[in-house]
Amino acid sequence: MSDAERWRELGQQLRVDSIRAAAVTSSGHPTSSMSAADLMAVLMSKYLHYDFDRPDDPRNDHLVFSKGHASPLLYSMYKAAGAIGDEELLTFRQFGSRLEGHPTPALPWVDVATGSLGQGLPYGVGIALAGKKLDRLPYRVWVLHGDSEMAEGSVWEAFEHASFYGLDNLTVILDVNRLGQRGETMHGWDLDSYANKARAFGWHAIEVDGHDVEAINRAYGEAAAQQGQPTVVVARTLKGKGVKEVEDKGGWHGKALDHPEESVAELGGERHIVVQVPKPEKGEPHTFDSTGPLQLPSWQRGDEVATRRAYGEALAALGSARGDVVALDGEVSNSTYAEIFAEAHPDRYFEMYIAEQQMLAAAVGLQVRDWVPFASTFAAFLTRAYDFIRMAAISRANIRLCGSHAGVSIGEDGPSQMALEDLAMMRAVHGSTVLYPSDPNQTARLVVEMADREGIVFMRTTRAATPVIYDAGDEFPIGGSRVLRQGDDVAIVAAGITLHESVKAADRLIAEGIDARVIDLYSVKPVDVETLRAAAEATGGRILTVEDHWSEGGIGDAVLEALSDDGELPPHVVRLAVREMPGSGKPAELLAAAGIDADHIAQAARALVGAAVPS
Amino acid sequence: MSDAERWRELGQQLRVDSIRAAAVTSSGHPTSSMSAADLMAVLMSKYLHYDFDRPDDPRNDHLVFSKGHASPLLYSMYKAAGAIGDEELLTFRQFGSRLEGHPTPALPWVDVATGSLGQGLPYGVGIALAGKKLDRLPYRVWVLHGDSEMAEGSVWEAFEHASFYGLDNLTVILDVNRLGQRGETMHGWDLDSYANKARAFGWHAIEVDGHDVEAINRAYGEAAAQQGQPTVVVARTLKGKGVKEVEDKGGWHGKALDHPEESVAELGGERHIVVQVPKPEKGEPHTFDSTGPLQLPSWQRGDEVATRRAYGEALAALGSARGDVVALDGEVSNSTYAEIFAEAHPDRYFEMYIAEQQMLAAAVGLQVRDWVPFASTFAAFLTRAYDFIRMAAISRANIRLCGSHAGVSIGEDGPSQMALEDLAMMRAVHGSTVLYPSDPNQTARLVVEMADREGIVFMRTTRAATPVIYDAGDEFPIGGSRVLRQGDDVAIVAAGITLHESVKAADRLIAEGIDARVIDLYSVKPVDVETLRAAAEATGGRILTVEDHWSEGGIGDAVLEALSDDGELPPHVVRLAVREMPGSGKPAELLAAAGIDADHIAQAARALVGAAVPS
Repeated sequence: MSDAERWRELGQQLRVDSIRAAAVTSSGHPTSSMSAADLMAVLMSKYLHYDFDRPDDPRNDHLVFSKGHASPLLYSMYKAAGAIGDEELLTFRQFGSRLEGHPTPALPWVDVATGSLGQGLPYGVGIALAGKKLDRLPYRVWVLHGDSEMAEGSVWEAFEHASFYGLDNLTVILDVNRLGQRGETMHGWDLDSYANKARAFGWHAIEVDGHDVEAINRAYGEAAAQQGQPTVVVARTLKGKGVKEVEDKGGWHGKALDHPEESVAELGGERHIVVQVPKPEKGEPHTFDSTGPLQLPSWQRGDEVATRRAYGEALAALGSARGDVVALDGEVSNSTYAEIFAEAHPDRYFEMYIAEQQMLAAAVGLQVRDWVPFASTFAAFLTRAYDFIRMAAISRANIRLCGSHAGVSIGEDGPSQMALEDLAMMRAVHGSTVLYPSDPNQTARLVVEMADREGIVFMRTTRAATPVIYDAGDEFPIGGSRVLRQGDDVAIVAAGITLHESVKAADRLIAEGIDARVIDLYSVKPVDVETLRAAAEATGGRILTVEDHWSEGGIGDAVLEALSDDGELPPHVVRLAVREMPGSGKPAELLAAAGIDADHIAQAARALVGAAVPS
Repeated sequence: MSDAERWRELGQQLRVDSIRAAAVTSSGHPTSSMSAADLMAVLMSKYLHYDFDRPDDPRNDHLVFSKGHASPLLYSMYKAAGAIGDEELLTFRQFGSRLEGHPTPALPWVDVATGSLGQGLPYGVGIALAGKKLDRLPYRVWVLHGDSEMAEGSVWEAFEHASFYGLDNLTVILDVNRLGQRGETMHGWDLDSYANKARAFGWHAIEVDGHDVEAINRAYGEAAAQQGQPTVVVARTLKGKGVKEVEDKGGWHGKALDHPEESVAELGGERHIVVQVPKPEKGEPHTFDSTGPLQLPSWQRGDEVATRRAYGEALAALGSARGDVVALDGEVSNSTYAEIFAEAHPDRYFEMYIAEQQMLAAAVGLQVRDWVPFASTFAAFLTRAYDFIRMAAISRANIRLCGSHAGVSIGEDGPSQMALEDLAMMRAVHGSTVLYPSDPNQTARLVVEMADREGIVFMRTTRAATPVIYDAGDEFPIGGSRVLRQGDDVAIVAAGITLHESVKAADRLIAEGIDARVIDLYSVKPVDVETLRAAAEATGGRILTVEDHWSEGGIGDAVLEALSDDGELPPHVVRLAVREMPGSGKPAELLAAAGIDADHIAQAARALVGAAVPS
């Protein structure tokens, strides 16, 4: 058999197995798999360099199915590569199977979860950046991309960044099957419309018939040889290719075929081809040297320093001690202070410009190769990337995010720049960690802990300079808290800017004979239940929470949850938070207007001390 | 004076006033204002048709400052138009002033809040769609756009949609001043890079010197005459133009000038030009006829119907009764059932393809002109547009969102398609309403109420068909709840899919002698505190919440907040929610695995009845 004949046969096998897999639960996307089967057959036979026995081999290529709904095709490729058996293939979409409806890293060969469209390429950009700039290995990143998902703006962020960074190790295989979920795409089979856009973004573009294996072979060869710019192979395909009942027909998106056995027969029946996927090229990943043991910056009591600045300084120090730490920022590094890292470690800093989705995705891509990314922007603008954060959790990614300029305390810039929902957003991410320091020494210690923490780790920093209240060298374990003032009349729970207001309030209350306990809840998730419970017991159940955040989903809710979930009797919790839309003004004016400054805290504490409490 | 001379003088006045405004609080973005001053001087003198005395005139043009940080320029234009006085201009960024750091509709001439970059053009697309397809008036939409923000993917969603919909009433004025916040943009003064991309996306592009008022005049004339496609005027400008100390210099982003008086003198001093802004053209907005009184669909007990289908049917019925209702969907209308509206009212349906940011922004743009938009996609994918939702609240926009496919109960598709954070996300939006029906008749009533509700209104719908439990004609006021089973031993609070599981559990518990009250919390925000408090009192403080959502920020937290904030003694609340990452499987398997099915609810209720409670 010629190569071309073998590729065609493999393509048919991938179609047959996609149909068979979807038939098991009568669900899934066989037609979206069938359009790309020939494209993947050629890829895995000749171009993908991958050792399925060693998925962690740093020299492996990376294959990202941005059209994650074509998972039957991906799993059929795993079977053809000998990585899984036919029996496992037929567990597709069943409870307990690792062959989920959309690919996740529950499978060792999957780098990133997909299924939210328009994300695979931005992740691919991150992996390709790791290959070119950090690992400095010749591995390639291949992204199978749908045509419908080209409407997502995140795709164009990725096109722009891939070109800007000269990622010639990145190839997009665009499966233009013309049909989206509910009808035709904007551009149908107008391959030029895709190719011209890609070229305008600085890419090399090749148009092919996606069912002509020899043309596909030539296109991949051309892509692999391309220097200095990424390549997109724009392939005209037929959705449901090979089965007359569904081929190029509407109404068949996301549906198993009605007559799987007849369809398999129409494709020539089952095949049992096992492909020798090419092994990766030799090489060792580059590493960056440590300059020695960690030397964290430190600050003295009496100074006033913004936690955002401490973040930047600590991250730079961490980067000196650890060669695996990398940083990214969304064109605000002089505000988040990521610029301090960028100046110290330019080889490990990636400017992501104003493209928060690509920034998040790049962080996810970099950690695929075990780099330790820290990505920063204004906390308000992390909302732009929430879908990527959500998906990163499904990817079991380990990424660290820093959001600066939290809350109304930023002052004159006004509400568009104020993060007031970030704690709610980040707490509602599976397995996330949410940190909110109030002091630079504390910030620095927490930055160090973030590096080794699994999952999605978020730190919220403050714009304003605030007093140093802890000593350098103090420990701040994630999941802990600090009691700053002792007292048994009422407990005030706060973090960040409102912690300083709470201390001021407590100091005033003492003069009135009210002993307020002040708890620094720097670890908002996980939260220190024991300290909160002890405070509830000591104060007769009088707890006051104060936060520069909307009243939903933040510190108040974290405290309510903790004191509800522990099974003990619930205390009386009063929550101070931002409840009206702020405008511009001085920080102190806005804290007062929101009712979260020292005056309002003291007032609320007095009222709570006088209020009825659980007996 | 010639036109050109007048325009140049006006440009200098706008610069001078931008510097003066920023000097008041020593904050703001005068240099970003100065680059675009000539572009705006020509626009307001000759091309912008706007009656500042009648900002609600439907025939007015619309000017969107996507680079919202150039607010000093915008407010200086208002002064030059005679809309505000010099005294008010000098309240810029002060507490209580409506001249906030970034523009908001606190000012009657501002349609949409900006300040999160890359949003102005997508909003402009929405307004231009209203003009062309709904109002059918000749008003134009002008968007002043920064070059840095071209990196945002949302911008390219907008470029694509504007071209697809042939929005020749839309002009982007791209202020290429080369310098971003922390350095040069990716493309510097490479005007071609922007123009070529725009052309590849189907736009007409004109390159000009942004300080040559005659060239600007010609470009605007060409843009206004363009038929069938939108136009971008790509203008080369100097940041800080006109003041040597800052002109085209790095390090001056977002800073007031050091020597405002000298800078004003360098620009020729204060001027007092008042511009006669052209008035809008005549015309009356188109309206769509009502076919008669509202005839809501209805369903009978004994049937099983998905709430997502009821949403689509009710929305179509509402659209028949009300000509102002319009719908948008993100290429999943056959899943959300927005397709029923699309088929009934094709003139008022906008297919937004897989571009959730543009979908949200289009909804905001349409409501600028008082249309009543409903936008739908999978609830999980609304995370893609969270920054737009956040900003829509700052815009004081009235939009209605429907998110389908909530929670693990969707089954085989797996976690990428499961909304598990949407309640947390949507509750943490200022002034939002969050609805979560469990029954089709209830869904239909709530759809009607959504239309007249102010602010950001979200409805969460369920994929699966569930039993009809309410009668057609039943009322479900926003802020209310329903008690489905009476009982004083324990109260189970749920909504959507878990409400049906709770009813099953309660029916089993009765046989064991446990009388469980079941509360349908269809209005998650605002929440029915009275009914919850009554349940707490009747049950001795035993409350069980159950939700197909992560354990943070959803129904459990809404209940905790309500019963904490009302000042009464807090009850004992046990929260059942999704706590582990789900996979694929049958809905019943996944509900069981998450511990939120009838078995687990009954088990938790039994434990709670036996547990210690507040005395």
